[in-house]
Amino acid sequence: MQINYDDYLSDRSRNIPGSFIREILNLTQQDDFISLAGGLPNPQFFPVDEFQAAMQNVLCQNGKRLMQYGVTQGLPELREWVANRYRNLYGANIVPEQIIITNGSQQGLFLSGNVFINAGDPLMIEKPSYLGAIQAFSSFFPKFCPVDLEADGISLADFERVAKHSGARLFYGIPNFQNPSGISYSLEKRDKLAGLLRKYEVVMIEDDPYGEIRFSGEPVPPVYSHLPKQVIWSGSFSKMISPGIRMGWLCVPNPLLKYFTRSKEAMDLHSNNLLQAAILQFLTDNDIDEHLVTIRKAYFQQKETMRAAIETYFPPEIKITNPDGGMFLWAELPEGIDMQTLVEKAIQEKVMFVPGQSFFTEPNTKNYMRLNFSNASPENITEGIRRLSVAIERVVQVVAG
Amino acid sequence: MQINYDDYLSDRSRNIPGSFIREILNLTQQDDFISLAGGLPNPQFFPVDEFQAAMQNVLCQNGKRLMQYGVTQGLPELREWVANRYRNLYGANIVPEQIIITNGSQQGLFLSGNVFINAGDPLMIEKPSYLGAIQAFSSFFPKFCPVDLEADGISLADFERVAKHSGARLFYGIPNFQNPSGISYSLEKRDKLAGLLRKYEVVMIEDDPYGEIRFSGEPVPPVYSHLPKQVIWSGSFSKMISPGIRMGWLCVPNPLLKYFTRSKEAMDLHSNNLLQAAILQFLTDNDIDEHLVTIRKAYFQQKETMRAAIETYFPPEIKITNPDGGMFLWAELPEGIDMQTLVEKAIQEKVMFVPGQSFFTEPNTKNYMRLNFSNASPENITEGIRRLSVAIERVVQVVAG
Repeated sequence: MQINYDDYLSDRSRNIPGSFIREILNLTQQDDFISLAGGLPNPQFFPVDEFQAAMQNVLCQNGKRLMQYGVTQGLPELREWVANRYRNLYGANIVPEQIIITNGSQQGLFLSGNVFINAGDPLMIEKPSYLGAIQAFSSFFPKFCPVDLEADGISLADFERVAKHSGARLFYGIPNFQNPSGISYSLEKRDKLAGLLRKYEVVMIEDDPYGEIRFSGEPVPPVYSHLPKQVIWSGSFSKMISPGIRMGWLCVPNPLLKYFTRSKEAMDLHSNNLLQAAILQFLTDNDIDEHLVTIRKAYFQQKETMRAAIETYFPPEIKITNPDGGMFLWAELPEGIDMQTLVEKAIQEKVMFVPGQSFFTEPNTKNYMRLNFSNASPENITEGIRRLSVAIERVVQVVAG
Repeated sequence: MQINYDDYLSDRSRNIPGSFIREILNLTQQDDFISLAGGLPNPQFFPVDEFQAAMQNVLCQNGKRLMQYGVTQGLPELREWVANRYRNLYGANIVPEQIIITNGSQQGLFLSGNVFINAGDPLMIEKPSYLGAIQAFSSFFPKFCPVDLEADGISLADFERVAKHSGARLFYGIPNFQNPSGISYSLEKRDKLAGLLRKYEVVMIEDDPYGEIRFSGEPVPPVYSHLPKQVIWSGSFSKMISPGIRMGWLCVPNPLLKYFTRSKEAMDLHSNNLLQAAILQFLTDNDIDEHLVTIRKAYFQQKETMRAAIETYFPPEIKITNPDGGMFLWAELPEGIDMQTLVEKAIQEKVMFVPGQSFFTEPNTKNYMRLNFSNASPENITEGIRRLSVAIERVVQVVAG
């Protein structure tokens, strides 16, 4: 007799939504498939040789120490590098002791959920928001309270309304080149948001994986800079160096450090020492700003290619964003379109996008799609958009017919 | 005005006990300090050069692919290696699809808690048990139900009593060279335990980080071999290769794979590709069994050195185990001793152990200490035990006085 595992699962493990992207991974990895779905950086810019030299170096110099257990918060010198860079870049008040190294920023989000959220707690979240964050937070059963986004960032009026109405103490947002919408908060909005956070005593989890991938203009300081005692600021090496090394960080207000550290310890003791040291060595031996200039230029070109292809192939009623950084375009489709059918038609055409519903915590009447421009070559971007236009046309025909 | 974070913390983050070992880490890292506290492997045996060659190799061959995002369950070839090794070693029925690569076995325990435990669920656990597991599970608010250990493993009578009385559906145990007690389950006990698991429909989380560190005799198949559909079996590269690389695995029954994978995805997407590939390359290019022979011989000698020093220095009323593998001795001290005072005296003598209470989920009347023999040199082991005997003598004098 075999036991019935349905009776053994925690409520939590049943509550984590699947990821559309990971569910179609087998499909999109076929050779002749063009995926505009995933949020993958362009591997052309992974600094393989430089990283190899860095790894060689740290293993030679410090192999035995790095292969031993390490400190939960992370390698002190890497934490110092992070604190120094963003103190210099944004004039933000950050000390190395506040930095906790995480397994990519995804773990930072899960840790934040672990530290803050009891079942039923209201959690304000941008509408739409990052799918991976919705997954991470869902483990803790928050009551999601969506807040409208506008072209220049979070809607302050809606934020105030939701904060009052829900009594939420926690807000999760992505102020730079938001995933999926590409929207960035203006400097003024960041300042005013900080005022509202203070007024309503709301703590913000500020997710910033794309801040360094800015196509033009000066860096805009994070909300953290405006209110360092009330913001957990999360960053990542994924877009700067490589996502396969799974390394990011949290910048945590002092009174919370103990709780984040203990949660990280319970979860996996610490992040691996060898890669932390190799990242630090890579950052010391190479000019990361020069490297970032290369990535920014290329992604900007890829975005322009995608927008040009959309102008050529898509029906004109489809609205498209024009973000100044990051990795995604966000398209609004006519309301009549059945998105499930569009996914099926796209699969037939061997192209994929992410349907907008994945980014909402409640059913949404409007139809969106997220299009990734960072991962495909310019030729594949153009061809992918062309294929997608064929799929769209078929669905529109169905609607019209 | 600063907000009061006490009102913002989840119940969960308040419920994770601290780790004695990590709290005294700053002390024990002083140069003249001898720590018998941590569960650290001997860095002398970390295969730095071989690992460097392996890392070099995979970065050369596959750098761009490995630096990209990867699959949540882990590198298929590494999962295959794990399945093959333990199918061959134990004749266990394992296929690669069942293996999920984790950030050390600690993450495997946290994942298991995440998948199974609702607040208040009874969880059977050995008495005493591994501190890190108690930390990981505490995040999920189980009702810990301790089960007695005997010299040849879990007490079957007590297991049956607790299973009946608590109605627990989950049991966490370490059948090989248990941490902290060093106890191993006999083959007969494993078989009978499997029978009880079946009878009471209890799922076992079988933690096996030390199974490969056996000093003599033949490997004993895990409980998993007896009941593969009802056991989650957890292993680790920490003791085999290096703990600083944070890499382990879970072997999960098929119906549960979806839930473990989704939890891992929500937690950190996947374990880092580069180290997974380097581990596989290291295991392919080197004879791991030969490497393990070296470690086993050395740890056996270190254990013998510690036992000899204890015989020389400790008062004879202290009882000590003689495990046939692993990294720890477990000493029972006279009941009158105040352990807090002993810790203070030991700090004065610049030596440290872990007080037994850390390994119990409820107050315990007997006094124990866990002594690690894997990390210190033979000279330091002898000197450490001598220092500890001075500390013990002082506390015994206090009791007598």
